[in-house]
Amino acid sequence: MDERLNIAVVGAGYWGPNLARNFRNNPAWNLAAVCDLDIVRARRVAESVGGAPVTSALSEVLSDPLITAVAVATPARTHHPIVMAALDAGKHVIVEKPLADSRVSGAAMVARAAERGLVLMADHTYCYTPAVLKIRELIADGFLGDILFIDSVRINLGLIQPDVDVFWDLAPHDLSIMDFVLPGGLDVASVSAHGADPLRTGKSCIGYLAMPLAGGGVAHVHVNWLSPTKIRQMVIGGTRRTLVWDDLNPQQRVSVYDRGVDIAEVSQATATDARAANISYRLGDTWAPALAEGEALAHVASEFASAIREGRQARTNGAAGLRVLSVLEAATGSLLGDGAPRLLSAPAL
Amino acid sequence: MDERLNIAVVGAGYWGPNLARNFRNNPAWNLAAVCDLDIVRARRVAESVGGAPVTSALSEVLSDPLITAVAVATPARTHHPIVMAALDAGKHVIVEKPLADSRVSGAAMVARAAERGLVLMADHTYCYTPAVLKIRELIADGFLGDILFIDSVRINLGLIQPDVDVFWDLAPHDLSIMDFVLPGGLDVASVSAHGADPLRTGKSCIGYLAMPLAGGGVAHVHVNWLSPTKIRQMVIGGTRRTLVWDDLNPQQRVSVYDRGVDIAEVSQATATDARAANISYRLGDTWAPALAEGEALAHVASEFASAIREGRQARTNGAAGLRVLSVLEAATGSLLGDGAPRLLSAPAL
Amino acid sequence: MDERLNIAVVGAGYWGPNLARNFRNNPAWNLAAVCDLDIVRARRVAESVGGAPVTSALSEVLSDPLITAVAVATPARTHHPIVMAALDAGKHVIVEKPLADSRVSGAAMVARAAERGLVLMADHTYCYTPAVLKIRELIADGFLGDILFIDSVRINLGLIQPDVDVFWDLAPHDLSIMDFVLPGGLDVASVSAHGADPLRTGKSCIGYLAMPLAGGGVAHVHVNWLSPTKIRQMVIGGTRRTLVWDDLNPQQRVSVYDRGVDIAEVSQATATDARAANISYRLGDTWAPALAEGEALAHVASEFASAIREGRQARTNGAAGLRVLSVLEAATGSLLGDGAPRLLSAPAL
Amino acid sequence: MDERLNIAVVGAGYWGPNLARNFRNNPAWNLAAVCDLDIVRARRVAESVGGAPVTSALSEVLSDPLITAVAVATPARTHHPIVMAALDAGKHVIVEKPLADSRVSGAAMVARAAERGLVLMADHTYCYTPAVLKIRELIADGFLGDILFIDSVRINLGLIQPDVDVFWDLAPHDLSIMDFVLPGGLDVASVSAHGADPLRTGKSCIGYLAMPLAGGGVAHVHVNWLSPTKIRQMVIGGTRRTLVWDDLNPQQRVSVYDRGVDIAEVSQATATDARAANISYRLGDTWAPALAEGEALAHVASEFASAIREGRQARTNGAAGLRVLSVLEAATGSLLGDGAPRLLSAPAL
Repeated sequence: MDERLNIAVVGAGYWGPNLARNFRNNPAWNLAAVCDLDIVRARRVAESVGGAPVTSALSEVLSDPLITAVAVATPARTHHPIVMAALDAGKHVIVEKPLADSRVSGAAMVARAAERGLVLMADHTYCYTPAVLKIRELIADGFLGDILFIDSVRINLGLIQPDVDVFWDLAPHDLSIMDFVLPGGLDVASVSAHGADPLRTGKSCIGYLAMPLAGGGVAHVHVNWLSPTKIRQMVIGGTRRTLVWDDLNPQQRVSVYDRGVDIAEVSQATATDARAANISYRLGDTWAPALAEGEALAHVASEFASAIREGRQARTNGAAGLRVLSVLEAATGSLLGDGAPRLLSAPAL
Repeated sequence: MDERLNIAVVGAGYWGPNLARNFRNNPAWNLAAVCDLDIVRARRVAESVGGAPVTSALSEVLSDPLITAVAVATPARTHHPIVMAALDAGKHVIVEKPLADSRVSGAAMVARAAERGLVLMADHTYCYTPAVLKIRELIADGFLGDILFIDSVRINLGLIQPDVDVFWDLAPHDLSIMDFVLPGGLDVASVSAHGADPLRTGKSCIGYLAMPLAGGGVAHVHVNWLSPTKIRQMVIGGTRRTLVWDDLNPQQRVSVYDRGVDIAEVSQATATDARAANISYRLGDTWAPALAEGEALAHVASEFASAIREGRQARTNGAAGLRVLSVLEAATGSLLGDGAPRLLSAPAL
Repeated sequence: MDERLNIAVVGAGYWGPNLARNFRNNPAWNLAAVCDLDIVRARRVAESVGGAPVTSALSEVLSDPLITAVAVATPARTHHPIVMAALDAGKHVIVEKPLADSRVSGAAMVARAAERGLVLMADHTYCYTPAVLKIRELIADGFLGDILFIDSVRINLGLIQPDVDVFWDLAPHDLSIMDFVLPGGLDVASVSAHGADPLRTGKSCIGYLAMPLAGGGVAHVHVNWLSPTKIRQMVIGGTRRTLVWDDLNPQQRVSVYDRGVDIAEVSQATATDARAANISYRLGDTWAPALAEGEALAHVASEFASAIREGRQARTNGAAGLRVLSVLEAATGSLLGDGAPRLLSAPAL
Repeated sequence: MDERLNIAVVGAGYWGPNLARNFRNNPAWNLAAVCDLDIVRARRVAESVGGAPVTSALSEVLSDPLITAVAVATPARTHHPIVMAALDAGKHVIVEKPLADSRVSGAAMVARAAERGLVLMADHTYCYTPAVLKIRELIADGFLGDILFIDSVRINLGLIQPDVDVFWDLAPHDLSIMDFVLPGGLDVASVSAHGADPLRTGKSCIGYLAMPLAGGGVAHVHVNWLSPTKIRQMVIGGTRRTLVWDDLNPQQRVSVYDRGVDIAEVSQATATDARAANISYRLGDTWAPALAEGEALAHVASEFASAIREGRQARTNGAAGLRVLSVLEAATGSLLGDGAPRLLSAPAL
């Protein structure tokens, strides 16, 4: 059997304890350090997972030749310097969402990892839930056909964040999932963002993102901190079938509907009217696949180890994180332009 | 008791039979004629409601001095000539949604009705359902406080219409309801529309409308003909309470949540940080009001009669229909501009 | 094509208009008469379906040689004399539930129909809904395996009936459906009934029926007039799969779960402990079959005509009605005995 | 402030860790020992809660004068000897459900605690959930009026237990809740039990309990290990309002319906027919109270400490546990008698 890889968790705030616990319990990993500027916080996290070395000096972690990898769970604005330093020190890196606080910074991180031949993984945790893994598999197998639209709603009475708006807080989940399940990733050319701040908090608390897909389809996201009821629902329409993921219905999270509109193939020359005549409706069965059990973050830890050992990209790699970041940055631009569509910057890679 | 008013139903297509049946059964009305260019169709409708005179000549209806009012249920592009002729003949008019096929035409109809002192009513049927009447009342009574956002979803596997897109087919419902329940009506300055036609039918089958509200809030509509599941849900967030209307849950259509975010009043000078400190969350009771029974169209017929007798505007008057029309027209403009926000034309009234 | 059969509807009360409308609109039938002691009521029903001859004299109907069949929708206590007279006059008969007001009367009707070679059909309308037809088909095809239990809940805020208790009012639906879908019909040897009349109305308003099934399973019915919420749900557990029918969920009425407990086959000699070791759990997919559209009563009318033409028993024949009646009568006996199990009388057929 | 009380948890199986964790974290308690015949198991539990002394000798715990109380989480058949020994040693005792494996044993425990003036508490954990505490309060305040019926369904695909049937496994939850919320406790004179074992496991896997309530009402329980779907629902009908508790709907666990049947007060002499004339229906609002947060077992630990300090009975005392036990024992008797109603033995207290 392979030896365990040594990892340090950097950042002992909200998400750090989850990372620490999962790397501690994963057979592929040895939790070699918990690092936080606040040593008391680092110690608390280390103790909560059954003990681990702690330090307040990042340099100590990066100069330790036994440490193979670093998991970064610090505030987004610090991702760039920490990740660059870690890559320069030869460490593989997994980093919390969002990848960075700007597309340029994120692109630099992706480029540096490529130069050094290191794994840079985005911790898009949701992508490793049984539901999303199944959705990706169904789409990849052609079960839904070509994707016509993908609509995601993520609303609840949420904590108004002090430093980010509702787009940067919630939409990374929807965008990273879309990027993960769509065959070509979240390949959009522009985004229109509409936000509202009716309580005058200084940032959007309600948000909508509309993104035309190649081929005439559309991806749309609705995020909202002010809804009294909680909804976590994604509808993915395809030419063959349509899928609904309702994450709050544990008895039937994923439903696949063999219902839809069929358009008979017609020759180029045929007019719209003829086309209308070729529309028909299917009202077939519904099917809800059984889903495996398992904590998503455990899969994340395993995937990170596998990518390192196999010298390959992680399934949610830096480029995936960068695509999400590009949409968020363009969305901020669209917001400033009152919702006019904003082109995404040319891909860095 | 008052004498019955005589009404003619013009147009014996999809909606005509419902109008005929309701005017036939309403104690305020006498169904004096069913008029359609296709006399066979007119006769079929008249018979289905227990008998009524039929004609294929509109002029016959308009020249009959005993006929007080006309209900127009013909295709949208014919609304303008028929309604103008009816008004010129001194008839009160109720007209199907949308009011007309252009804002200019609609504005002309509203102006003509005003000049002649006649009632011009928009048949916004949904507004007269027990649920919507209750919602309007709750908002008018200040029960929700100031409105922060209003989000409407109306999706299902729908008939792809030959002549209109999904905006013109479905959104009039959402927009007319918003106009009815919001204290100042649907008073929006601009609209951004995002549509998709992934099946290449020649028109949008999926659509999103975003409309900033005065005061920093937002109104949003999602309409979709390609969803395998049916959703009819509207969330209306207020400073005091939030309301969810789920029209497909007959056991609890309207729920009012005493949950939300409170922001303590702070002085002008206070910074955003201080503001954040003044945010608190309410997690109070939920309340679902009992709703009266009754068919909405019966209320429509009664309201039309009352407006005529009392010499007042109908609750859903021509101006309401015109506001809906203005949004739809601007939405079409926004679509042509790839979703860039489109200012509504200056109100005609 | 066959000529239409002539039918008379006897009884113009609650259910009569539905029968009249369906026989009027069915291509196999001609509605030859509506008969009620109250001729005004008969006339009102005839008019509501577009016109039909009326009479207040049953003898007139029975002596008319052109009338082939009679549909009886009078109060239960009058079923026996009317049906016997109709059979003696050589008419085929369809009769409302319950078949009669006593098992003895019902058995006499079944025997007489057999002697005369006439069709006696029980109008178990629910059995002809798309959902129940599908359930019967799935069970008959062995899709659920052997039936382990069948549990039915039918509760809502219901009209307290003046003449019957909640068992005789609601349970005929559940019992007739069970009889229809179970491979051998509702073949139970005894029934325990528990009723409650907490409002002192003089009859049970809440009721439970427990019926052991051959092979160790159980059938159970819960009926209730006092529930503020409406539930119409049946769970049918089988050795292979389990089915849930939720009649109030139009988007997914029938769900089939490939979940359950498996017991490996063990030899006779094996002890219980060993048996426990052979238990395993399946957590497979869920599947919701598409259901055809269509009004159940239209199928009832067609089935009645087919049975007559083909000289065969109807799918819900008199014997089925008699089995339901036998359970209800035994239930009444059990109630009088404080819920002690009551054996069903020996089957009459 | 009071000093912490010392408690020993006896039994380190399924439930022991939860008790240990809650007593460890409760400010009123000091976890003084974890005791199990299997010292390895005891040690594992002690470690999982952050450390505590362990022992395999019950006598050591009972002879320790610093230990005030004992929490017993061993198999039901050992409750009697352990609890009696603990009481004789002067310890207050909290014991898992069911109180004992027979009514006689349970009654002896209750009597012994009374003689010694010690607290004997039944760990009816569900009673201390926010939902059940609220239900008890609403009923006690007369909000529902007099109770007409109480119907509980607790079904899911459950582990078939090696030593107990579905009644003894699941029904203690329903019965202890009913005992807790009904004003006079679960005061029933008899019970009818219907069970089924269609998989031939040697014990009931499906069960129904019917219990007439004084005043003409009924309590009913449905428990089932073979249902593919999970239902946890209780309906409590009252003369004023009806309450539905749906434990699997976190967004609205408790709903109170102002719907029901009203019977006008009539004089003694009035006949049933007149009574029918006085029935009317209410279709009022629905209300869902906000529920406090909090783990039920934390409340259990606090209540146990308070009862000891205040020298009073716990809210779920030994007598409550005995009432539940009496019903279960009578249910077993009814099962042996094919479901005939079984009188409960005269209360021991």
